Amino acid sequence: MIITLTTDFGLSDPFVGIMKGVILGIAPDVQIVDISHDVQAYDVLQAALVIDSAYPYFPDRTVHVVVVDPGVGSARRPIAAISHGQIFIAPDNGALTTVLGDEVHAITNETVFLSSVSRTFHGRDIFAPAAAHVARGMPVRNLGPSIQDFIKHPVPQPTRIGDKLLATVLRVDKFGNLITNLRRRDLNPNFTIRVAGRPVKRLCLTFSEAKSGELFALEGSTGYIEIAMNQDSAAEMLQVRQGAEIEVETGIANH
Amino acid sequence: MIITLTTDFGLSDPFVGIMKGVILGIAPDVQIVDISHDVQAYDVLQAALVIDSAYPYFPDRTVHVVVVDPGVGSARRPIAAISHGQIFIAPDNGALTTVLGDEVHAITNETVFLSSVSRTFHGRDIFAPAAAHVARGMPVRNLGPSIQDFIKHPVPQPTRIGDKLLATVLRVDKFGNLITNLRRRDLNPNFTIRVAGRPVKRLCLTFSEAKSGELFALEGSTGYIEIAMNQDSAAEMLQVRQGAEIEVETGIANH
Amino acid sequence: MIITLTTDFGLSDPFVGIMKGVILGIAPDVQIVDISHDVQAYDVLQAALVIDSAYPYFPDRTVHVVVVDPGVGSARRPIAAISHGQIFIAPDNGALTTVLGDEVHAITNETVFLSSVSRTFHGRDIFAPAAAHVARGMPVRNLGPSIQDFIKHPVPQPTRIGDKLLATVLRVDKFGNLITNLRRRDLNPNFTIRVAGRPVKRLCLTFSEAKSGELFALEGSTGYIEIAMNQDSAAEMLQVRQGAEIEVETGIANH
Repeated sequence: MIITLTTDFGLSDPFVGIMKGVILGIAPDVQIVDISHDVQAYDVLQAALVIDSAYPYFPDRTVHVVVVDPGVGSARRPIAAISHGQIFIAPDNGALTTVLGDEVHAITNETVFLSSVSRTFHGRDIFAPAAAHVARGMPVRNLGPSIQDFIKHPVPQPTRIGDKLLATVLRVDKFGNLITNLRRRDLNPNFTIRVAGRPVKRLCLTFSEAKSGELFALEGSTGYIEIAMNQDSAAEMLQVRQGAEIEVETGIANH
Repeated sequence: MIITLTTDFGLSDPFVGIMKGVILGIAPDVQIVDISHDVQAYDVLQAALVIDSAYPYFPDRTVHVVVVDPGVGSARRPIAAISHGQIFIAPDNGALTTVLGDEVHAITNETVFLSSVSRTFHGRDIFAPAAAHVARGMPVRNLGPSIQDFIKHPVPQPTRIGDKLLATVLRVDKFGNLITNLRRRDLNPNFTIRVAGRPVKRLCLTFSEAKSGELFALEGSTGYIEIAMNQDSAAEMLQVRQGAEIEVETGIANH
Repeated sequence: MIITLTTDFGLSDPFVGIMKGVILGIAPDVQIVDISHDVQAYDVLQAALVIDSAYPYFPDRTVHVVVVDPGVGSARRPIAAISHGQIFIAPDNGALTTVLGDEVHAITNETVFLSSVSRTFHGRDIFAPAAAHVARGMPVRNLGPSIQDFIKHPVPQPTRIGDKLLATVLRVDKFGNLITNLRRRDLNPNFTIRVAGRPVKRLCLTFSEAKSGELFALEGSTGYIEIAMNQDSAAEMLQVRQGAEIEVETGIANH
């Protein structure tokens, strides 16, 4: 069985290693995979986007633990969900926005918690042991009652204003590619994307077909349109960060 | 069996991966867990604090390797200790200050070393293979003779001066929380902690009960008092780093 | 079986975790080891140096995946090589320069690819699944035909000019040590290395035998001469980076 971890804990502190100790103490044979521990602190939408891009590449019954948890210790519930044949465990704060389906349970079964639960580190005390018990075979329904009123934030969608489409930069990756919330279908043959005042008019299939210094659009590996440069950082060149607005001139009026 | 790794090697260089190759060549079925590789370079006290916060969450017989080793290649000994039902392997330089108990062995048995031992990378040549042999079942006493004169540095404790307690910031975590060397028992009901000229008077149970922008104290997940902010970095706001002095006005005179 | 990963993907994005999901979906019992994901972006020579320093410490039949791939999606081929009793899988762009031997195969067998292959993430769609199939036992020759015209870049070697040797800084490690392309044999008893205008005349066996503030040379753990300081960063002190030129006065004229 596989347990994946997605957090905003970073790797400098021992937080992630401690979670792994708890998991392996309960489920010694599990394979643990780090998805990312560099989610922007407290940014539940980023966490939701990250797990959404990763889970399709994991086998059925993988248990995904997502801990971006600004409300740790407050009344927000821990939840466990079954979706797409996999299991997702997280605080009920929108961090699973992209994956929650029909079956969601509040985690109330304290027998799966560590014997002493802190107010500040539920990754260690609740989420890690709950995931380990599920990976060992405990049915998700044993974690607690089914709920319907879980939190699901909308992922920002492009908005049409007149003949324009207002979109946004969802994430910037390590190479400086701007991952937008646009899809291939949003771009007409004669599209112009405007980002930080610069026009982008070319859709490339690969990074390497672009000229050096050229800004271009590309359908990224997660299906979103990215603004990119060939062996250079679009983010740095444009001085653009997550959340930046971009505009698409579609050439089609909004009749 | 589990082997954990705590070093100041970072993750950019291949050092940590190389140690894992050595371990898996000897003990193919071991689970390797990274605790942290971002201990401040050469800071053995940080290493000791990190492993101290992590080991209690690992199962019995876990082998913890701690390599922060400014004296690598010099006369300082490699040691292996049994403590709290777990095994700790490190250079004899204080990096195990927080965990060393009664049974400590110098590692002198060269049959567990790599065939060629460098002067600069004992993590690869001595500590990793010794840990792997122990994880496979070699008794710790086979690594070398029991010793008593191992190095144990004191962890800085708060000092009482008049009616004040002088304390220090042991670590700053990724969220900017200041982990102090104070414990809950050091704070009276009417305490004032002064840090970087700012008074902190409130003890919260959770991050989220504090107001935005408020500095507060909190009993952290390792039992130390932390100075924190809700979804913000106390370290950045106060411009305070590891080692900073803090003062507690206890309101109790030193009769 | 072990699969190692060396990339320029960083650990903030989910790229590496996704590759691991693909691998474990095909080969659930494999041990995955990260060598480094902080290879400088697009720097195939760095990747070649990193894997060259790491593979000797892994057991026979380890599968090493190296993905530094500026030409992803272009005509450059994926390749798999058998060398030193181990298997190396990478794009054919020089990233395996240091390890390629006689047996190199183009990976053309699409049955080992993911069912849908993107133009931008072959680490996920081609390299990870090919490695997993080989780790499970598929012979390398089943991946595709043997080739001879693979790309091998020369590793920069020191050049003799008159009585001087011009060398270069291959890498800077986390501690600020400058890893040069010099070997022990390149240094005469009375050598002077000049780097950033500063002379280095002493060869130490260990870091700790040098005085505080002293620049010295040392045979590093990979066999290259390093310029180092004791518990300090030579790179920071000299303001020197990868690629910097260094000069060795050998005292031997070039007759």
